[in-house]
Amino acid sequence: MPDMSAPAAAPAASSSPVQLSALGRRAHPPAITALMRTALETPGLLSLAAGFTDNATLPVTAVGEALGALTASAPDREFLQYGTNSGRPGLRAALAARLLAQDDAARARAGSPAVAPDPARVEALAARCFVTNGSQQALYLAVQTLCEPGDIILVDRPSYFVFLELLGGLGVEARSLPVAADGRLDAPALRVLLRGLRAAGERPRLKAVYFVSWFSNPSGRTLDAAQKRALAEALRAEACVVPVLEDAAYRELGYEASAASACPGVLGDPAWDGFPRLYTSTLTKPFASGLKVGYGVCDDDAWRSAMLHVKGHHDFGTANFAQAVLEHALGSGAFDAQLATLRVAYRAKRDALHAALVAGGLPGLGWRWLVPEGGLYLWLEGPAGLDTAGDSAFCRACLDEGVLYVPGALCHGDAAPTNTVRLSFGVLAPAQLAEAAARFCRAARRCA
Amino acid sequence: MPDMSAPAAAPAASSSPVQLSALGRRAHPPAITALMRTALETPGLLSLAAGFTDNATLPVTAVGEALGALTASAPDREFLQYGTNSGRPGLRAALAARLLAQDDAARARAGSPAVAPDPARVEALAARCFVTNGSQQALYLAVQTLCEPGDIILVDRPSYFVFLELLGGLGVEARSLPVAADGRLDAPALRVLLRGLRAAGERPRLKAVYFVSWFSNPSGRTLDAAQKRALAEALRAEACVVPVLEDAAYRELGYEASAASACPGVLGDPAWDGFPRLYTSTLTKPFASGLKVGYGVCDDDAWRSAMLHVKGHHDFGTANFAQAVLEHALGSGAFDAQLATLRVAYRAKRDALHAALVAGGLPGLGWRWLVPEGGLYLWLEGPAGLDTAGDSAFCRACLDEGVLYVPGALCHGDAAPTNTVRLSFGVLAPAQLAEAAARFCRAARRCA
Repeated sequence: MPDMSAPAAAPAASSSPVQLSALGRRAHPPAITALMRTALETPGLLSLAAGFTDNATLPVTAVGEALGALTASAPDREFLQYGTNSGRPGLRAALAARLLAQDDAARARAGSPAVAPDPARVEALAARCFVTNGSQQALYLAVQTLCEPGDIILVDRPSYFVFLELLGGLGVEARSLPVAADGRLDAPALRVLLRGLRAAGERPRLKAVYFVSWFSNPSGRTLDAAQKRALAEALRAEACVVPVLEDAAYRELGYEASAASACPGVLGDPAWDGFPRLYTSTLTKPFASGLKVGYGVCDDDAWRSAMLHVKGHHDFGTANFAQAVLEHALGSGAFDAQLATLRVAYRAKRDALHAALVAGGLPGLGWRWLVPEGGLYLWLEGPAGLDTAGDSAFCRACLDEGVLYVPGALCHGDAAPTNTVRLSFGVLAPAQLAEAAARFCRAARRCA
Repeated sequence: MPDMSAPAAAPAASSSPVQLSALGRRAHPPAITALMRTALETPGLLSLAAGFTDNATLPVTAVGEALGALTASAPDREFLQYGTNSGRPGLRAALAARLLAQDDAARARAGSPAVAPDPARVEALAARCFVTNGSQQALYLAVQTLCEPGDIILVDRPSYFVFLELLGGLGVEARSLPVAADGRLDAPALRVLLRGLRAAGERPRLKAVYFVSWFSNPSGRTLDAAQKRALAEALRAEACVVPVLEDAAYRELGYEASAASACPGVLGDPAWDGFPRLYTSTLTKPFASGLKVGYGVCDDDAWRSAMLHVKGHHDFGTANFAQAVLEHALGSGAFDAQLATLRVAYRAKRDALHAALVAGGLPGLGWRWLVPEGGLYLWLEGPAGLDTAGDSAFCRACLDEGVLYVPGALCHGDAAPTNTVRLSFGVLAPAQLAEAAARFCRAARRCA
């Protein structure tokens, strides 16, 4: 009889007959785990760490309406049946049409001649689109099919920390794209970096460049058209035409709807012609995160085929029901109605957090931050010399006060500064955000 | 006509600047792809190939009721919010309780003293349970964390062909567990095989044993208690106490509910004490395949932790909404009601297909098959010398007649016989099954 009651115990690696693979041995708990555990164990704690979405606006009615409409319109109940590995054709067509419209609008804004909406263009793009378990899976597939352990990917500075952990799990090294003091891409420094890679014999290991291009997690910054063009040109000038992974997770979450067409994505931007391109985004954050549906659009046939075959091994297709709900919501207007609601809600939350941090006197203590026009995050830079790590005096002060944040050092592929912090305003209500900010400011004052 | 031998669309690597990783280069289209494409292009074809589930019984009402109940009971709408990486605690507890009850009942049947239902045992097992995107993802995580390319896993003969493709994608070699002429495990031959591995210096590469233990895909066979015990003893006797992957995907789909407790799973079977164990199953096939929720229960802490960390990289958690629907359905009785419906439906479908194959004269042509007591498949052995491959005269005859099957050779890790066939009766209605069987018999007669 197995003793099921035995304590789940500290990792029993030594006593276990399991020999893990190299990948298995590299799989470490996320760096944020210990902090999250502390959070759970701290009654009354307000978390500005979790990257969850707003509960109050979750579209319960829209999901119910989608189920009703699907039930009425599909007597064969196909929406509860298995789907295909690449995803529902209707959903992929809707995503392709939406992406083309956004990119076309962006180019028209920039003065390019208008392009007629053309069903053939939508069809061609839909054929390059595949649906995944959140955009995270598309990113994983991309790195799995491109990289061996020891390879290198260029990333934002700061960068999305779950992507950095994904790279670590696959044994891939992150190198930061250089930024100037204003946080914008430093193209000349990038060229120096690329030449350095070559001089060090590391160029063959450079396999891709990754960036979050709208209202980035964690920085809230947008890589505008000029920066994206400068990035492409620097890579091209240094003979580094490597696959590009554009993560557009927050493209729809600009507080003005027009932000999504402020500039085109890499697929619609001639600056990136010749680069193998994967554009990823999510239907999760802009609608109902519990559905977990994302997608990739890739213009390189061999690479996309490889990703799809590996997806077939992972799970042979994302849950068809969640896709059907989203397909319906995109078609009925419920998706856009939800976005309109979210834009107002998140702007109000940003305002609440920002105002309370100012009212709490944080700028006077040497802290500064960008006020983003979209997304879910404030990225704060503390006074020089401050240490915000999970085991720092500042972090302890915050926990004492009853507030949690993500240490910014976790969001760096290399050479992490010690004095940055990511605050998320996605989850808490405005009044809670104000209280959390007050606590954060008290901790900052104690450590000033 | 599908040319199964041709490489499906020459990888366009030459014209693309993408250098795929070794894993990316190993990712080939599933062997069944060409046949499936033919099926789509053949009007009026009846497919006995697809492993989909019955549309007519899909639980539309139960899903609607779950959504209504969740909406009423969770004012915070948490069921549409992100969940956790390992899955909903309530769902994991329900799965653990169900598994313990089945295993306890199985042991009681076999004469073991009754074990009191004990919340602490449920809690301990729930802590070892994690939710995945179908059981397929649990299997992928298991192989990812155990194996390097070139490693070896023992598999059923015949075996689940999607698992074999997963192994191929990760560069892992399948070796078949030997079976006797009656299809049952041949333990003495297994010991010879294991000694052969050792003699050839391959023992260090043997990393796991995998089997589908109830109403297997594709064979319809069940690995009963005696065979499972003999398997464990042979492995132990040859000092091959390697991780065991028990795939119980069809445990709930016996036509008698009691089949699920005919024998315990490996976690509840003392014969397997000392083996690191992963038990996987699915909530997909027994309820609504469009929800795609599976799970693993693993009693080795280091291995389970590694799988969970890698899952965090894949997607940091299976869609919370689908889990919430299933948690509700398990608690409300809707899941068991659906199972009762499915058992009747699938038994009737098995009867329809079996009877029509007999009526069509297949036994007289030298074909034979087991009539399974559960699952979705008939596994047919044709006359010696028959070739059922996708490019065979027999396959062409079937397509001419308008019926499709899975060539049995695809379901073998090694030394595949040429004359076997998997027929699925999951999708077609009984009348269609009768017509498909008549077509199959006509093709068999043409090739006799």
